[in-house]
Amino acid sequence: MGADDAARGALMTKETPEKDTFEPLVRALVAGERRLHELPGDLAADEAARIRRLALEEITGADLTSLGTYSFSAATASTRHCENFVGAAHIPIGVAGPLPVKGRFAAGDFYIPLATTEGALVASVNRGCAALRRAGGVTALAENAGITRAPAFRTAGIAESHALVAWVRKNFDRLADVARKSDPFLRLIDVEPHIMGTTVYLRFIFDTGDAMGMNMATIACDRMVRDVISPETGAPCLALSGNFCVDKKPAMLNILRGRGRRISAEVTLSGEIVREVLKTTTAALLEVHARKILLGSIAAGALGFNAHFANVVAAFFLATGQDAAHVSEGALGITIVERREPDGAYVAVQMPDVPLAAIGGGTGLATQKAALRLLGVDPASSGRAPGESALALAEILGAAVLAGELSLLSALASSDLANAHLALARGVQTK
Amino acid sequence: MGADDAARGALMTKETPEKDTFEPLVRALVAGERRLHELPGDLAADEAARIRRLALEEITGADLTSLGTYSFSAATASTRHCENFVGAAHIPIGVAGPLPVKGRFAAGDFYIPLATTEGALVASVNRGCAALRRAGGVTALAENAGITRAPAFRTAGIAESHALVAWVRKNFDRLADVARKSDPFLRLIDVEPHIMGTTVYLRFIFDTGDAMGMNMATIACDRMVRDVISPETGAPCLALSGNFCVDKKPAMLNILRGRGRRISAEVTLSGEIVREVLKTTTAALLEVHARKILLGSIAAGALGFNAHFANVVAAFFLATGQDAAHVSEGALGITIVERREPDGAYVAVQMPDVPLAAIGGGTGLATQKAALRLLGVDPASSGRAPGESALALAEILGAAVLAGELSLLSALASSDLANAHLALARGVQTK
Amino acid sequence: MGADDAARGALMTKETPEKDTFEPLVRALVAGERRLHELPGDLAADEAARIRRLALEEITGADLTSLGTYSFSAATASTRHCENFVGAAHIPIGVAGPLPVKGRFAAGDFYIPLATTEGALVASVNRGCAALRRAGGVTALAENAGITRAPAFRTAGIAESHALVAWVRKNFDRLADVARKSDPFLRLIDVEPHIMGTTVYLRFIFDTGDAMGMNMATIACDRMVRDVISPETGAPCLALSGNFCVDKKPAMLNILRGRGRRISAEVTLSGEIVREVLKTTTAALLEVHARKILLGSIAAGALGFNAHFANVVAAFFLATGQDAAHVSEGALGITIVERREPDGAYVAVQMPDVPLAAIGGGTGLATQKAALRLLGVDPASSGRAPGESALALAEILGAAVLAGELSLLSALASSDLANAHLALARGVQTK
Amino acid sequence: MGADDAARGALMTKETPEKDTFEPLVRALVAGERRLHELPGDLAADEAARIRRLALEEITGADLTSLGTYSFSAATASTRHCENFVGAAHIPIGVAGPLPVKGRFAAGDFYIPLATTEGALVASVNRGCAALRRAGGVTALAENAGITRAPAFRTAGIAESHALVAWVRKNFDRLADVARKSDPFLRLIDVEPHIMGTTVYLRFIFDTGDAMGMNMATIACDRMVRDVISPETGAPCLALSGNFCVDKKPAMLNILRGRGRRISAEVTLSGEIVREVLKTTTAALLEVHARKILLGSIAAGALGFNAHFANVVAAFFLATGQDAAHVSEGALGITIVERREPDGAYVAVQMPDVPLAAIGGGTGLATQKAALRLLGVDPASSGRAPGESALALAEILGAAVLAGELSLLSALASSDLANAHLALARGVQTK
Repeated sequence: MGADDAARGALMTKETPEKDTFEPLVRALVAGERRLHELPGDLAADEAARIRRLALEEITGADLTSLGTYSFSAATASTRHCENFVGAAHIPIGVAGPLPVKGRFAAGDFYIPLATTEGALVASVNRGCAALRRAGGVTALAENAGITRAPAFRTAGIAESHALVAWVRKNFDRLADVARKSDPFLRLIDVEPHIMGTTVYLRFIFDTGDAMGMNMATIACDRMVRDVISPETGAPCLALSGNFCVDKKPAMLNILRGRGRRISAEVTLSGEIVREVLKTTTAALLEVHARKILLGSIAAGALGFNAHFANVVAAFFLATGQDAAHVSEGALGITIVERREPDGAYVAVQMPDVPLAAIGGGTGLATQKAALRLLGVDPASSGRAPGESALALAEILGAAVLAGELSLLSALASSDLANAHLALARGVQTK
Repeated sequence: MGADDAARGALMTKETPEKDTFEPLVRALVAGERRLHELPGDLAADEAARIRRLALEEITGADLTSLGTYSFSAATASTRHCENFVGAAHIPIGVAGPLPVKGRFAAGDFYIPLATTEGALVASVNRGCAALRRAGGVTALAENAGITRAPAFRTAGIAESHALVAWVRKNFDRLADVARKSDPFLRLIDVEPHIMGTTVYLRFIFDTGDAMGMNMATIACDRMVRDVISPETGAPCLALSGNFCVDKKPAMLNILRGRGRRISAEVTLSGEIVREVLKTTTAALLEVHARKILLGSIAAGALGFNAHFANVVAAFFLATGQDAAHVSEGALGITIVERREPDGAYVAVQMPDVPLAAIGGGTGLATQKAALRLLGVDPASSGRAPGESALALAEILGAAVLAGELSLLSALASSDLANAHLALARGVQTK
Repeated sequence: MGADDAARGALMTKETPEKDTFEPLVRALVAGERRLHELPGDLAADEAARIRRLALEEITGADLTSLGTYSFSAATASTRHCENFVGAAHIPIGVAGPLPVKGRFAAGDFYIPLATTEGALVASVNRGCAALRRAGGVTALAENAGITRAPAFRTAGIAESHALVAWVRKNFDRLADVARKSDPFLRLIDVEPHIMGTTVYLRFIFDTGDAMGMNMATIACDRMVRDVISPETGAPCLALSGNFCVDKKPAMLNILRGRGRRISAEVTLSGEIVREVLKTTTAALLEVHARKILLGSIAAGALGFNAHFANVVAAFFLATGQDAAHVSEGALGITIVERREPDGAYVAVQMPDVPLAAIGGGTGLATQKAALRLLGVDPASSGRAPGESALALAEILGAAVLAGELSLLSALASSDLANAHLALARGVQTK
Repeated sequence: MGADDAARGALMTKETPEKDTFEPLVRALVAGERRLHELPGDLAADEAARIRRLALEEITGADLTSLGTYSFSAATASTRHCENFVGAAHIPIGVAGPLPVKGRFAAGDFYIPLATTEGALVASVNRGCAALRRAGGVTALAENAGITRAPAFRTAGIAESHALVAWVRKNFDRLADVARKSDPFLRLIDVEPHIMGTTVYLRFIFDTGDAMGMNMATIACDRMVRDVISPETGAPCLALSGNFCVDKKPAMLNILRGRGRRISAEVTLSGEIVREVLKTTTAALLEVHARKILLGSIAAGALGFNAHFANVVAAFFLATGQDAAHVSEGALGITIVERREPDGAYVAVQMPDVPLAAIGGGTGLATQKAALRLLGVDPASSGRAPGESALALAEILGAAVLAGELSLLSALASSDLANAHLALARGVQTK
């Protein structure tokens, strides 16, 4: 019985034990004699969850019944994903598409699962898909920028900092060996050192195949640091993550260098498509692009030059089991609009920093795995070479983000037209 | 029967209609004769969802059964939150706490619901809570920075741009009237104009009470623009959102001015707590703070000067029904560590840009509302004055983020110690 | 005899004293028995300079004769501008123009003095002036953003930080009184507080009339801090400048808020002028603008979105006696290019952060004052109201910067054309 | 007779021709019948300058006599440095030092020439030198980050953009050949490509020896682009400088990668030196560093994390003939302060982006060359290997900037102490 069956089993049996069996444990939690993580180890995960809910209901007066339904295995969720497990949050999923993608790894028509509570988002992406279908699909390209982890070391001064960097460059192959031995699915592909006086950051860059890979990378760094770098150079590591990674913070470094998957997607739309599907004109799109996407973001000191990457990224991440904290990175990037004669538009998105997994992390949960299978990118069944499922997923995401940008930019642009019409109707002069 | 009861009802009856009843619709979807959004309007939402799942299963070969379980009302979800509704993503929830908060709006012990798939996160926050309990709790302070929307206008040149700004300042009260009439729960509190040549951005700042408020603000802006600003000044609005808002993109403007809720939380830990609960020393914490949080983020050109705000923000957002795309804003902010004589530590977090709701959006879904009630911040039952539930929620989030920072910084710092011990044991010289 | 006459006198008499009169002092300097600043106080400034040069020549073997010529008063230079005075650097000045400016404060034709060693810069600005003359001149607008100084205060925590900010808002008028008493030409116009945990920055914003005003502002801050803020609130000031000023560092804060003088300048060029004077086309200008000024600077994480503001700002600053360190601020800002039907171009520059003086600092030196008089903005003779000479100077600078941008962008754009022609001539396909 | 002798000769003879000889030309300029650059080509440079001054004096009423004195050759200045030459700006030079530098390229005691009009700057650097002398000197390290120029190319889309980048990587050696042939003193050392949709930036990185090298690099790029890249790939170059260079704008890219010379300088000061020479304490220095340099700059969104790099850089640049517009880059960088047991301080500066020349540009002018000789870094006489004079100059600059930082940070820190004393004397409680 595989994980999914287990999940389904858990769902079918549901949680049925009698309340009074657990009463003493509930009492102990309520009284504070036990902490939430101090339940007996032999309790089934869903029983422990129920006990916690009962106690919390008593303490707070809240009805937590709704949390008690989930289609994943409580045992797995509580050990791999979530301590002090009490249940599940349910987030609605809608589907946009079909979206034709012409990528190196993803080719064909895709239905895009989006988990969101923001009304109109799915409909908006869906409208973008309609335009993209009429244009013959999206050209997409995903690359492995590599997941990164940058331990920070302390040195005695500038000379020692430079010596440490030189040592690392010289011993790169040895470090790559240590990394590979820590995990067969991980490969150290580069290191970018950075010196700040007596602090040296070594930004290790890894290919982690279909996994997002942050944990693998961290473990590999720990090995390299403890077994080789610190012992041999004498430079103590102060923090295995020195914020030069940069994980889960927006950063110019990630934009310049890429992180996770680097994604591009583009389309050329005829003037007819712009008018008939997007209900606007290329001229209006260009003006919104110039004044909002470029000048507006420049004026605000923004690191994101787009309309709403974050919306599509977040909904796609939630549906497919990605780490929602990485929305902070996926929101970065730029949308480009250019005129194509005579009256068409070229539109592209560039997403430099998208940590993304087709395996591991939240992708193993039941609903998330279903979403990956909907996209045909579950490595267990996709028939793709190792590492290519995640890249296919990235290309599909790029295409979906492009659909979202097209749709919102068009909505803003056509509203402008409406506005202009309104003004005209009222006899107002637009100077 | 309220929304919650409906949700529970939907859950209990489950989706039972026979497959063959829907067969013709499924066939039409599979054949592409109908699009996903073209199902008959009189179908029940959960029936439509099931038809879509069946069609998608046939098209893609994926098993989507797990998506078909949800504790919210399909009718509400499909109309308010998610078009082309097919089901739900389930994300595990764990609880950390109790966490004692001493805020202006939140006071007492709180259990923090965190929806996450990242193993160790809940345990880590929980450890931070233990330290914070021993320190007597967290001082937290939330303020309304205000939700913002910045339409972009086109002018003929510098003089007209300045004239438009002058007009807006002069007519502020009228605009505030229009805004108030568009929604009784919304109040225009300020406007920040910005000129970029022939583009003028008017960043309108609203108090939106317990709602996150982006939609209310957008509608109010639309009214102000269409009914007053453009007709009277003749300046056309090119985009109702001009990216000077800045919504769902990281931006220095939001950091400087704040957006949504601006949150601070702080604690002073004795040396004993640092050693016994956090297993490190103040000196080690200070060094990790200096070299990782400050220098590392500076080196990377990051806008976030923290360890992992995004992790706690994302998990808290998902559990409590916030917009996950706003993780891109909530990840901003700084963690501060200072020595307190003789061997203790002062630790604070500042979160300038946290859009947050206690009502509206995803907060009305069943599991999300349960989480809000767990925290005692559901405005319908919290007994707080209007607007204060969201501020209480913000203060609790600030305290939880502080717990997360404490825990991760300590883990990094103590690993350093371990590393140093290791090096010593091996007879290695740390120069 | 005024300062200028003194200067000219110094120049005419030159330094003539016999070397042997000073021999013992030179010997003492060479032997290290005296430091450079330990010469007798009754020595004339030019004599002291000569003694220092003679000693340095002996120590280093360098011939420093050329430094000994200067048209300013050595006595003034050595006491007000430059300790351990040894002479002068000579920087070539060229003049571009006439440049017709249509500003609020500067109106008429101006000859722009530029001190530079970069060949082609003056010629380039001059070409821009030719285009601007044909277009009927530059519309320019300068405003006082205000010079700023932001002392940093230490507090015990968040509550005290907020209390300090509240106190300052409440006592603003008293602080403004203190500031005014510290200097009659200075007026406190606003304060922008910023809290970072236990640090509070109070960014005081001053109108300093025709002076650049950094020193006046610092002295006023010192008074406000020592006499009022710290004594009454108990909050110690840790640094009179807390880097939230932001003086002489590029910063998003200054771009958003402005600092010193905020300058705009614009022109609309017919297609004929673009072709005949600038030797390019509007289409080529627009493409260079989009791909270089906007996308290129975005890609590089630059704070400046222009071609070469710094070149014109630096040359203008050196010629007119500004503080060259402020080039770091004057380099910020954006150039905007838009199409104007049928084939013309609108070009504008925005300079948010230009500290600038018409009096005080280096403006009193002979050559610098001559340059100001050439521009008609020496307050002593310009017949303008107080404060308006500096604003006129700012408008002229804005126009000159616009000339420089026009010229360089056109050169880049026409070179592209040449390149394209070349490619065509060689039968190369441009895909 | 070398350039210097010519300069001195020009100085001695001064400009003597009779006014009436030039009268017709002056008249023509005043009447606008000739432009400033339209004087007869056979006029001596100083005569042309005088004619322009006379005309400008008549047009504007300003007395420009003081501009007519200069110690450089007018012929050289007017042809190589400054079109429409009219004379010179005189800027006072002071000398700080001696400053002991322990660098790879600069070793020994140096006297630092600083051209400035900001009173107290030289004295301040001089005080820093005193502390550095007592500490045994400054450890400095300069590297060639390389001067950069990044042409921008247009492609048809993502695939072609990637193909262009691949082509460039493959043909790097050929491009390096073309570059070397364009100038024997220039070497192409690397290229960093960056794709923004249909725009490709190729950031070429050059070693330019003792020259700053921007012109050499531009010419080499022009050759590579026209002769090889565009003809062979068909990709048109839209701008020889695509702002990904990044020249004369502050940019995160330059900070991360370095540009020109990358400089570090450091010192460890005993507690005694901090107290006796700098009149403060290490604790106070650390606090100013934390709250001003780090937190203050973070709060302001600054790219510079220092006290006043720009002041010392600007004064040093003006004295030694550097391009003053590059102050916009030299102002970037960070100052680091750390405690050294028991009560001492480690202080370091890092300057990632300092374009700097020992030959070419303004370094050939008389006073500027004298300053270089004072420092012993004129390649013609320094006896250093090619390229090492500029690196020596860079190390000296790093040491001088460190002196300036030490002094200003100490002044701020001790003023705080004074303030505290004052508060105590008045019986005020510092909470």
